[in-house]
Amino acid sequence: MTDADDASRTTRRQFFAVAAGAAALTSVGSAARAAMPVAADSTSFFGLHQAGIATPQQTNVYFAAFDLTAKTREDLIELFRIWTTAAERLSRGEPAVEGLQRDDAEPLDSGEAGGRSTHRLTLTFGIGPGVFVKEGVDRYGLASRRPEAFIDLPRFNGDQLVAERTGGDLCIQACADDPQTAFHAVRQLARLADTKAKLRWAQNGFLPRTKPNETPRNLMGFKDGTMNVPVDNPAAMRQYVWVGEEGGWMQHGSYLVIRPTRIALEHWDRMKLSFQEQVVGRSKQSGAPLGATHEFDPLPLERTNADGELVIPESSHVRLAAPESNEGAQILRRGYSYDNGLSFVAERWPPWRQGMEFDAGLLFACFQRDPRTGFVKIFDKMSKFDMMNQFVTAIGGGLFAMLPGITRGGVLGQTLWD
Amino acid sequence: MTDADDASRTTRRQFFAVAAGAAALTSVGSAARAAMPVAADSTSFFGLHQAGIATPQQTNVYFAAFDLTAKTREDLIELFRIWTTAAERLSRGEPAVEGLQRDDAEPLDSGEAGGRSTHRLTLTFGIGPGVFVKEGVDRYGLASRRPEAFIDLPRFNGDQLVAERTGGDLCIQACADDPQTAFHAVRQLARLADTKAKLRWAQNGFLPRTKPNETPRNLMGFKDGTMNVPVDNPAAMRQYVWVGEEGGWMQHGSYLVIRPTRIALEHWDRMKLSFQEQVVGRSKQSGAPLGATHEFDPLPLERTNADGELVIPESSHVRLAAPESNEGAQILRRGYSYDNGLSFVAERWPPWRQGMEFDAGLLFACFQRDPRTGFVKIFDKMSKFDMMNQFVTAIGGGLFAMLPGITRGGVLGQTLWD
Repeated sequence: MTDADDASRTTRRQFFAVAAGAAALTSVGSAARAAMPVAADSTSFFGLHQAGIATPQQTNVYFAAFDLTAKTREDLIELFRIWTTAAERLSRGEPAVEGLQRDDAEPLDSGEAGGRSTHRLTLTFGIGPGVFVKEGVDRYGLASRRPEAFIDLPRFNGDQLVAERTGGDLCIQACADDPQTAFHAVRQLARLADTKAKLRWAQNGFLPRTKPNETPRNLMGFKDGTMNVPVDNPAAMRQYVWVGEEGGWMQHGSYLVIRPTRIALEHWDRMKLSFQEQVVGRSKQSGAPLGATHEFDPLPLERTNADGELVIPESSHVRLAAPESNEGAQILRRGYSYDNGLSFVAERWPPWRQGMEFDAGLLFACFQRDPRTGFVKIFDKMSKFDMMNQFVTAIGGGLFAMLPGITRGGVLGQTLWD
Repeated sequence: MTDADDASRTTRRQFFAVAAGAAALTSVGSAARAAMPVAADSTSFFGLHQAGIATPQQTNVYFAAFDLTAKTREDLIELFRIWTTAAERLSRGEPAVEGLQRDDAEPLDSGEAGGRSTHRLTLTFGIGPGVFVKEGVDRYGLASRRPEAFIDLPRFNGDQLVAERTGGDLCIQACADDPQTAFHAVRQLARLADTKAKLRWAQNGFLPRTKPNETPRNLMGFKDGTMNVPVDNPAAMRQYVWVGEEGGWMQHGSYLVIRPTRIALEHWDRMKLSFQEQVVGRSKQSGAPLGATHEFDPLPLERTNADGELVIPESSHVRLAAPESNEGAQILRRGYSYDNGLSFVAERWPPWRQGMEFDAGLLFACFQRDPRTGFVKIFDKMSKFDMMNQFVTAIGGGLFAMLPGITRGGVLGQTLWD
């Protein structure tokens, strides 16, 4: 080794030492810091609820589902302990693992998010049904803890779920205003899971970059998200999104239904504009409900045209999804568009054809207090009658219990086994 | 229909009419406009060279390869004419097709980029070997026009090219600072190709969001792009990137080698830091060459340590890629990271294993004046000796002749058949 090599090495060691020192300072000052305004760029990891649900939606997601390979409840808790520590650090832009980096050891962090902004990174953790019972085995002695609301998601009309993109014992939703930051976080957490869990499926997603307060358009070209539970309204969030006292250990958590949903874009793009608008129930350009003028106008659900026909058709997407059509049921949608390039598809729409088509669509995601009165209630009817179904196909996903928030010093999922 | 419906429809028609009017005005003023400063957000479509090569790299790419189904040379020229018109419009943020949108017709544009910034969109078109001869047939009477430099890319050591992600008669590189804008553009162009060309493979990619002048890190966690042909240096671009007089009709074009290259991230993440740095030949944290101090320091290729060993190892990536090791050869790298979730992989690295792994890596892309003295010259040796090869595998791609720039009133590829 030359002097220059040693110098370079010292510099690096100092860098990691400084990072660790900064983390230590932050820990010391954490009680005081909690009351201080959070930097615009950072999102608190600790709280009554997990971040990434009420957080204003970031532009990118990396969603990952895992199969548990942990053998005992202690292993499972150890995994959650490791993930809690690492996720809190990642949320502050620190390397995933604390410590001094040694040259002759594997990196504490893969480094591709190193030294950059956190880009509002949030990490949201959930559990699938396999935590309770899997293939008839109660692996972790938790079978009796499965909440009543944590149903098996029914098979919906039209579902074409692929096993390799469906289910999972655990999930992580990583969201950030940068794709590499979101992927980076899951990659560290997957590595740290080591022998306790392994990746099952993953899907990234994006929103278009829009101006503030502009509703983003989905890949069908329509504004998507005009009607939604307002995340800045605590009463509405309590009513529709956060699990209440009825949920026992799941109180302050939320249920996530996530469904990668392919859109037959080539088919859709060849539909007449007026038909596309009938399918959605809104104007494509303005986003206004049919029969109304502005994007945020209420849906004129009763309005008819001169021929006595409903202006917003009976089987249009907005009508079937509207709270008015579902006894007031509402869900917090927080989905992203996805784009996996092309794949070979045999299409059911005429003319019958097969070939390479866009493997793209919507990574549908919604949060709710109870899936029985949320997604399942709303979607059961939609899966049968929504005109949009001829263009969209759910190809995977599942239902996850997104855990309650983590208190400082606490561990993810603590209420589950305490 | 009610009055409100008519009002809404009129509004929409007016919107499209205004858009068309603006386009007309632009055309009228085009001669004068060429000399005026271009808006910060827009990149000129016309010029001696195509945009998207010397353009400072955007954060997102959607790369698509097509198979030609056009039967005659006239069909091929017609496709290029349609693409020229649409691409010029898209580059200005206009709908892909000019005209008044009719409700009872399919949309002129799918609309998901509607009303937004162009996000510095560039569209760069190229042709594959199939334009000249395909399966022994000279479909368009262009066989004699194949440039000498447009070789068949050799099979390199370690290549595991998958047919579904390899080759193509045509390609489009769409780059923008927004993923939806890039995808949107290719989607319009694919639709407009109609019976003349069909999509063969596609891959999107991204760069992390960095501060100005910060070199982005790739998924290996290293700064990537420190040494590159300077796009703002016309002499260097002429020497290494733009085809000169020797290229005949390809003059002012450039050759693109694009290779989706999977990285075994799980494997890489478990390597010691010092070994990762030996593989790359640079410090992971600072990006400085081993044996040097700062990122942009020259490579101390001759420097040895106390044991007489080269500080930058013989088989390190930077040494093998350096101009000094390749008789001065240089290429303009303009790649992106990609992330396709997970896929089933049988790994060759010990311990032998198979399972779901990250389907992610580098969408390697480089532009050059002549592939024989560019990528092929540099990579032939690298494919055999680069220590990095145990972590990276090319899985597709190809060589494309990226056409010369388009003059106002001209058509893409005009020099090819004129």
